[in-house]
Amino acid sequence: MPSGEDDLIARYFKPLATDPGARGLVDDAAVLAATGSDLVLTTDAIVEGVHYLPDDPPEAIARKALRVNLSDLAAKGAEPAGFLLTLALRRADERFLAPFAAALGEDAATFRCPLLGGDTVSTPGPMMISVTALGRVPPGRMVARDALRPGDAIVVTGTIGDAALGLDLLQGRATSANHAHDAVHAHDAFLIDRYRVPQPRSALAAAVRDYAGAAMDVSDGLAGDLAKMCAASGVTGIVRAAAVPLSDAARAIAGTDESKLARLLSGGDDYELLCGVAQNNLDQFLAAAQRSDVQVTVIGVVEQGTAPPRWLDQNAREISLKTLSFSHF
Amino acid sequence: MPSGEDDLIARYFKPLATDPGARGLVDDAAVLAATGSDLVLTTDAIVEGVHYLPDDPPEAIARKALRVNLSDLAAKGAEPAGFLLTLALRRADERFLAPFAAALGEDAATFRCPLLGGDTVSTPGPMMISVTALGRVPPGRMVARDALRPGDAIVVTGTIGDAALGLDLLQGRATSANHAHDAVHAHDAFLIDRYRVPQPRSALAAAVRDYAGAAMDVSDGLAGDLAKMCAASGVTGIVRAAAVPLSDAARAIAGTDESKLARLLSGGDDYELLCGVAQNNLDQFLAAAQRSDVQVTVIGVVEQGTAPPRWLDQNAREISLKTLSFSHF
Repeated sequence: MPSGEDDLIARYFKPLATDPGARGLVDDAAVLAATGSDLVLTTDAIVEGVHYLPDDPPEAIARKALRVNLSDLAAKGAEPAGFLLTLALRRADERFLAPFAAALGEDAATFRCPLLGGDTVSTPGPMMISVTALGRVPPGRMVARDALRPGDAIVVTGTIGDAALGLDLLQGRATSANHAHDAVHAHDAFLIDRYRVPQPRSALAAAVRDYAGAAMDVSDGLAGDLAKMCAASGVTGIVRAAAVPLSDAARAIAGTDESKLARLLSGGDDYELLCGVAQNNLDQFLAAAQRSDVQVTVIGVVEQGTAPPRWLDQNAREISLKTLSFSHF
Repeated sequence: MPSGEDDLIARYFKPLATDPGARGLVDDAAVLAATGSDLVLTTDAIVEGVHYLPDDPPEAIARKALRVNLSDLAAKGAEPAGFLLTLALRRADERFLAPFAAALGEDAATFRCPLLGGDTVSTPGPMMISVTALGRVPPGRMVARDALRPGDAIVVTGTIGDAALGLDLLQGRATSANHAHDAVHAHDAFLIDRYRVPQPRSALAAAVRDYAGAAMDVSDGLAGDLAKMCAASGVTGIVRAAAVPLSDAARAIAGTDESKLARLLSGGDDYELLCGVAQNNLDQFLAAAQRSDVQVTVIGVVEQGTAPPRWLDQNAREISLKTLSFSHF
């Protein structure tokens, strides 16, 4: 007498739950065996129409739901241990669930973060996917956000602002750069993909743990997140805006327009890592990043003080960033 | 430059996050220190209009969100270690959030299950509260659902069907029993409270771990949940319906009407524990329950076989239960 809910779980999610801790999803709870590691816990939810667009592909939605959490684990220097999935659905729609579950399973395998359990509920409202991800670090080794020290290099992974531009393109707020047609299409597709499918820097987790004194992931805009990190650490910083790594696609659209640059620095959904690295660890951190094939860029330095971090343009003039970050309320 | 979201978290939830692992909610992740215990993980979400009524008191909604998860931990024999909270809100409404957070903090203290972290997102749809709760058991000691053995006593805590009747009363599907007015009001209030505020049997967790071979919490109806438990364990069972513990309030409404009894046995939201206890552990289990001040009742016995469990009336005739449990889809 399985119910529709049990059927749905058995059909789409049980095949993903191959980790022994998931117990085949037969139970109301999962178990993580004691290993002597500390457990790092993070949870992020994505809501249809808020964190993703209703016509985003189901595969992209699945990957985003998991990856925004993997990004947090990487920022804490943690190796993934598994995740719990809460799905709030209007209806059990196979055309959505089949590709959603398949992509989720692929990502769980790629990032070695097995599905351990979850909950499936009905909602009359927008779809919502809430993931709780668990990671492991050696005892006492979770990398904190509030531990920036004066003198630390401010380092960021990947490129910044792509996702914000991708969302602008999808919502008609930005237009493609004025280039030859093929390049434009490639750029647009790149930026939209950056919005839809974050690239968590899981490969850098061990380097973050070993060499970064403080770290967080950039999810609400680089400028705002750096300001939060400095405030939490009781420090300030100075950042060269021109040093912020931009993709060719972002550069093609933003050019040297300062208002467009501000959009890149304050837009959300980057899911890159922002780290404070002591100068005597910097060479090792950069070398480890190179070995992990993750681009990292020094963009500034932490300083004593409690003012918000200052952003300088190429002429060392201060840039004013009015909207620093995304907020839900 | 705190955002509205940061303000909301600082105002309502930071005061609850007193556990060192919560790190004052300043980080994107919480940490649970290694202790040599296995970690038990469970997640349950409640959706406005689905799991609770829009005009349920904020305090009750908070307690339900946490307690449905504490109920799962108790069923697994786990001691609470902490929880993560994901809140999807239409707006930041102080009249809701202040009493919600206060009640959540009270329950977190009562059940020694501290808030460790979470996520707050906006939604245009119904409110949704997703909790992931973590518990600890000695290595290898999580109590499974799929481990019923022939000969086990089938034991249930508390009373069954109250919450289903409470919901029926709130939604006008049931009317009060025909008694003197004061008694009716007291009964109605009791049943409605049983719907709104589950009583997780956390006090029984150690006894479940020590003496029950298998356990789950009854959330989707006793009949359906027992059927699932038997199916998962590859056994069947025989249950005396008259032995199922009913509250005075439920008895006053249901009387001896078999269709009403069926509603009690198949209604959801009981959040009582359903355990299989080997006969040679039964006395110790019952004694431990008495010490914990939790009512427990033997209602049947596990048998060999794969048919659904049979329900017998007082004349040992089989009762047919058409709708066994609640399903979202």
